[in-house]
Amino acid sequence: MTTTKKVTQRLTRESFKQWIQGLDAFLFDCDGVLWCGASPIKGAAKTISLLRSLNKRVMFVTNNATNSRATYVKKLASQGISADVADIVTSAWATVQYMKQHKIEGKVYMVGEAGLQTELELEGYQVSGMEHSDIKGLPHVPNIDMDTKAVVCGLDRYFSYYKMAYATACVLQIPGCHFIGTNPDSTFPTDGAIIPGGGSLVRMLECAIGHPPEAICGKPSQDLLQTIIATYELDPSRTCMVGDRLSTDIEFGNTGGLQTLLVLTGITQESDLSKIDNAVHVPDHYVDSVDVINQLQLA
Amino acid sequence: MTTTKKVTQRLTRESFKQWIQGLDAFLFDCDGVLWCGASPIKGAAKTISLLRSLNKRVMFVTNNATNSRATYVKKLASQGISADVADIVTSAWATVQYMKQHKIEGKVYMVGEAGLQTELELEGYQVSGMEHSDIKGLPHVPNIDMDTKAVVCGLDRYFSYYKMAYATACVLQIPGCHFIGTNPDSTFPTDGAIIPGGGSLVRMLECAIGHPPEAICGKPSQDLLQTIIATYELDPSRTCMVGDRLSTDIEFGNTGGLQTLLVLTGITQESDLSKIDNAVHVPDHYVDSVDVINQLQLA
Repeated sequence: MTTTKKVTQRLTRESFKQWIQGLDAFLFDCDGVLWCGASPIKGAAKTISLLRSLNKRVMFVTNNATNSRATYVKKLASQGISADVADIVTSAWATVQYMKQHKIEGKVYMVGEAGLQTELELEGYQVSGMEHSDIKGLPHVPNIDMDTKAVVCGLDRYFSYYKMAYATACVLQIPGCHFIGTNPDSTFPTDGAIIPGGGSLVRMLECAIGHPPEAICGKPSQDLLQTIIATYELDPSRTCMVGDRLSTDIEFGNTGGLQTLLVLTGITQESDLSKIDNAVHVPDHYVDSVDVINQLQLA
Repeated sequence: MTTTKKVTQRLTRESFKQWIQGLDAFLFDCDGVLWCGASPIKGAAKTISLLRSLNKRVMFVTNNATNSRATYVKKLASQGISADVADIVTSAWATVQYMKQHKIEGKVYMVGEAGLQTELELEGYQVSGMEHSDIKGLPHVPNIDMDTKAVVCGLDRYFSYYKMAYATACVLQIPGCHFIGTNPDSTFPTDGAIIPGGGSLVRMLECAIGHPPEAICGKPSQDLLQTIIATYELDPSRTCMVGDRLSTDIEFGNTGGLQTLLVLTGITQESDLSKIDNAVHVPDHYVDSVDVINQLQLA
């Protein structure tokens, strides 16, 4: 018996034509793929236009929970990419879908930013947490609202000890209070720096609370992938996940039977490819950037 | 072959005399043992006086890094317990000892409070971080001091996303920058509530940085125990660690060959005793509170 180890392949002029003919739909991660912070990635808009001209379905699937889908429509437009709210999946949206599916209703304590609050409020949740951005330091023993039904944690650049203590107290003191993470990303690629991601905040709460969240709703959650496949009626084997992070994007696609394409414009560097120790993190193909797709089509 | 499983024993009138005659020295944890927040634990001062009258050496070994040893002298005095700075070991002090032993010098970025800063400055470190307690939210990409030699993380009730991003950037961007945790406590017992501890902040940084700290200096570090044994010339088998937390105090003592006594006035509840799944967490004895030592002696 021989073991065949999956090896990733650079997408080349030779392999491109067969690859693109085998695909009907593309799920694009955004941060580190289409842009880094305020800086667009060259060729991103051209590549999206090209794929649409080839009659490929294009969707955007991001673990960034800080923006609403409506804000993403504007952000994409500012990069020259037209999109409808229905083309966009964020981990904030995924979290709200999870909560609805699990019949969670009422008050939510949120460690997160405006986009997450918007998505929660659109589905009728009463959200608190943002107002605590003004509290720094003590009082460190919060007087919690005992009607809180769930703590939801995502990236919050206004995070403070007070919010952490409040969230911890809710889960420890309120019987049945849910604890849900939006996404597992430990870091976040932005202009010229890698900053801590929502996953690091979830890990801190997990440590203080003493157990992990019941769900982390963004990529690589296969519940999310099944929701996407059903909603958009996709054929997994003819759908490609394009992303920059092995442990979210690539694992998400590989586990779900999608094709996977890694780009090297975000978290993962080419030197990381030889160090992958988990088969589910090996992308089918990789390219330097999304611009390569456009270039290969024109070549 | 039979396996003998260690079982903890309640300290009783019958077992007390032999127990106390077998001991020359006591290491007392403080939070959850001698007091909870501002509330003293009944009988704590009497028990310390009693032990001293029996010619036992008494020291205080706390993982609380937020106070200096000088502040602890005052705190103990306010509870009716006299002590000298030399009787007190904090995880802040332990951290500074570790840094000196490993020849770390110069600038330190600190996630922590005034007591940690005091101990670092007493040994000549240039400490920054506290001034960032006034920054909330953005800017989230800090302009770091590239001369920073170490990031030290302990409990910081003025913790913010900015500090987290600063600390993460130091370790990721400065070659050779050390990453050190003061203590692993995930929570902290205070008046009427359990709040997140320094260990939860360390875990968050570990997640964002991508690797654990090179050392966590407080209990249960056996480097710390060896430093204490050498400094105070203790006989481990005739020394008792008294504490409220299995994963720090009791593991610290058991691993180092000390006697161990658990009190139930802090983190650990009596119902937790039947659930211990790690032999090193089984205390030799337990009592409801430190007051029981005094009561048993008088009985």
